[in-house]
Amino acid sequence: MEINPTFLDLRNNYLFTEIANRTHAFEQAHPDIQVIKLGIGDVTRPLAPVVIEAMHKAVEDQAHFETFHGYGPEQGYLFLRRAVAQNDYQERGINIDEDEIFITEGAGSDLGNLSELFTEHNVCAIQDPSYPAYIDTSVMGGRAGRFCNGLWSDIVYLPCTQENHFCPELPERPVDLIYLCNPNNPTGEVMNKAELQRFVDYANRHGAIILYDAAYEAFLDPEYSSDKSDIFPRSIYELTGAKECAIEIKSFSKTAGFTGIRCGYTVVPKALIRRTQDGRKASLNQMWMRRQCTKYNGCSYISQRAAEATYTAEGKAQNQANVEYYRRNALYIRDILLDCEFGCRPNTRIHMPPAGRNAGRFSPYIWTKVQKGPQYKSWQLFDLFLNQYGIVLTPGVGFGPSGEYYIRFSAFGTHESTQMLSKRLFHPINEDYELTLQA
Amino acid sequence: MEINPTFLDLRNNYLFTEIANRTHAFEQAHPDIQVIKLGIGDVTRPLAPVVIEAMHKAVEDQAHFETFHGYGPEQGYLFLRRAVAQNDYQERGINIDEDEIFITEGAGSDLGNLSELFTEHNVCAIQDPSYPAYIDTSVMGGRAGRFCNGLWSDIVYLPCTQENHFCPELPERPVDLIYLCNPNNPTGEVMNKAELQRFVDYANRHGAIILYDAAYEAFLDPEYSSDKSDIFPRSIYELTGAKECAIEIKSFSKTAGFTGIRCGYTVVPKALIRRTQDGRKASLNQMWMRRQCTKYNGCSYISQRAAEATYTAEGKAQNQANVEYYRRNALYIRDILLDCEFGCRPNTRIHMPPAGRNAGRFSPYIWTKVQKGPQYKSWQLFDLFLNQYGIVLTPGVGFGPSGEYYIRFSAFGTHESTQMLSKRLFHPINEDYELTLQA
Repeated sequence: MEINPTFLDLRNNYLFTEIANRTHAFEQAHPDIQVIKLGIGDVTRPLAPVVIEAMHKAVEDQAHFETFHGYGPEQGYLFLRRAVAQNDYQERGINIDEDEIFITEGAGSDLGNLSELFTEHNVCAIQDPSYPAYIDTSVMGGRAGRFCNGLWSDIVYLPCTQENHFCPELPERPVDLIYLCNPNNPTGEVMNKAELQRFVDYANRHGAIILYDAAYEAFLDPEYSSDKSDIFPRSIYELTGAKECAIEIKSFSKTAGFTGIRCGYTVVPKALIRRTQDGRKASLNQMWMRRQCTKYNGCSYISQRAAEATYTAEGKAQNQANVEYYRRNALYIRDILLDCEFGCRPNTRIHMPPAGRNAGRFSPYIWTKVQKGPQYKSWQLFDLFLNQYGIVLTPGVGFGPSGEYYIRFSAFGTHESTQMLSKRLFHPINEDYELTLQA
Repeated sequence: MEINPTFLDLRNNYLFTEIANRTHAFEQAHPDIQVIKLGIGDVTRPLAPVVIEAMHKAVEDQAHFETFHGYGPEQGYLFLRRAVAQNDYQERGINIDEDEIFITEGAGSDLGNLSELFTEHNVCAIQDPSYPAYIDTSVMGGRAGRFCNGLWSDIVYLPCTQENHFCPELPERPVDLIYLCNPNNPTGEVMNKAELQRFVDYANRHGAIILYDAAYEAFLDPEYSSDKSDIFPRSIYELTGAKECAIEIKSFSKTAGFTGIRCGYTVVPKALIRRTQDGRKASLNQMWMRRQCTKYNGCSYISQRAAEATYTAEGKAQNQANVEYYRRNALYIRDILLDCEFGCRPNTRIHMPPAGRNAGRFSPYIWTKVQKGPQYKSWQLFDLFLNQYGIVLTPGVGFGPSGEYYIRFSAFGTHESTQMLSKRLFHPINEDYELTLQA
């Protein structure tokens, strides 16, 4: 019996547990204070009426012999794959076929499971900071090497820092798999078409494959561009040569509020072909199809009907309204942070304007660190905001080493709770909280 | 870039495609004949009213801010894990904790994904015949070796044949992972407690782990036992020492008709501990928790509320009625096959009574081959039933080499279509169909 040892190599990710524990301790000590929770990456708005209606109808289908649906196709129902192909691709001038689309219960599963298509002998490039599952999946797949001084020896980190405007450089040494999240979580920054094209060209030059996480693409509304010459891709397949090197992973979670419904999809183009070490031709599309038919039995019929409803005219309008709701929160947080300088003991004033060119425009996250005043580490900022203002945020270091000194504000709260932010920042709940600078 | 070559080693599983193609050709040639489809492993009954009601309520929860549910726990909501622990375990005298239960969208995913906990250097023992995913998952995990004369060189096949009453012997050489399905698909046969205890003892002696697929356990009603001294386990944890060596995989698909709803669960006991090659202690429960938290975002809230409803008094009664409905079909098919001798050209009479001690009692499948008359191969029987009687069945050889000469009847049809069986068998639609014996 040989246990997979890579699972024991994983760092314990205490991020969200630690946040919960510190928040809980604070709430116990201050039962009278309403804590403002801007840490979460989960939506809070109820589902669009047209989606609710579609789900009631789908439930009713399951109640009658004539309309009952048992096992569906492992790849997803054609009604939904057709709606995706048409609305998310063909109408934007991208030619993606229905049999290149695979419906599942979510992007998280796909990002994890896609890793099975590759052996452990592949070098992964990962944006730093990024969604922690990219690193963890690489560790579990035996592709990370040893953990040393906060870094995995075999992972090629692509730092996204203030210096490069949070737009990563190409890898400095050869890589095989490139994880890109655009717009990025947690920085909220977006690569425009030209910036992303560099990665597509790199991948095609080196035979690498890009795993493109487009969970937040619905926020990319050109309406909000400050520079209209900037074009932001809603899909990586808008770029030349992308079908030969990229897998796109999409979610209905952030765009339509499906975090509890569970539905997403992955596009694996038929043009994506590689060879095994012994020279056999491998279609990634066929491999993924086979993987899904063997280890998956399809996504809930009700969830698929719900996703289909998001593509109706009403569905689009209702979801767009949700995205705008969260964007309004993001812009509100951005403006507060731009304007507001606040004091903290001992005797310090800090200013932490939002980082990045597109803060608040194209993503539900605001990424920020102290720009004027002493540099506090992520967890110090967390403690400051919690204890002095009663606000819960997410420490940036939890997303990777380049996230140190940053903190993430989420715009997924309600308007009401988000707007309490300004009042709190001007009227701290505890002016005596003292933060000491640490090494 | 190194593609996982094991995916290309997979045999193309043409079974269901081939069935669909031959059926389609027949229907084209005989548009006037209503084909009786007894091939499927999918349920046909609509969902129980109490489940429908729970889902409508859950959908409504998603429509309002106050009751909206976003991301749930990756392991599943406590309300459901508690219902499972209490109803499926504690009330049967088995002590399984809520944190040993992992809710997912289905047993198919769990059976596939659990394989990640083990390296490729593990020998798998698999019942022959069995659900094809056990073999395919082992191939994809690099544990199958080479395919030669219809067998994988590194897999230890556990033949289930008429000679051993479809109850497998212990493996003849050391194995690490043992896939057991009880009641078995496709044979419909069940190991009783004593028979299963041999495997638990073997696993504990050798440090092996049993992956126990209990998808059909709801059919195990002692009411139907012919020999009341036979005790059939509803869970492997009824057996001494099972918590130290077994993972149990359960589905709501066959018991509550959830094939389109997608919900199941897996039990990984905290007592299940192994060591890595370099001597580190590994809790399988913690490893699976970590796997799910990294590569999974939880099962649909609506599906979990649906599953919870199956544990109410009404839910239990309504689902029991569904199980009895299918069992009635199974017993009906059994009786027909016991009684009926039928002719086929040229000039032959065959009798194919159901195989096994418990045919029709404890499973929705009837497994049968010719006992009197010439031995036809699985696909010949398929062609005979399709062309002479207009009945679609599943060729046994599709489930493994020991399935050759067998054919599987499914009881998941309606009473009406199942009962057309007797009429058809006495009044063939084509008496001129001629079957020739093949080598």
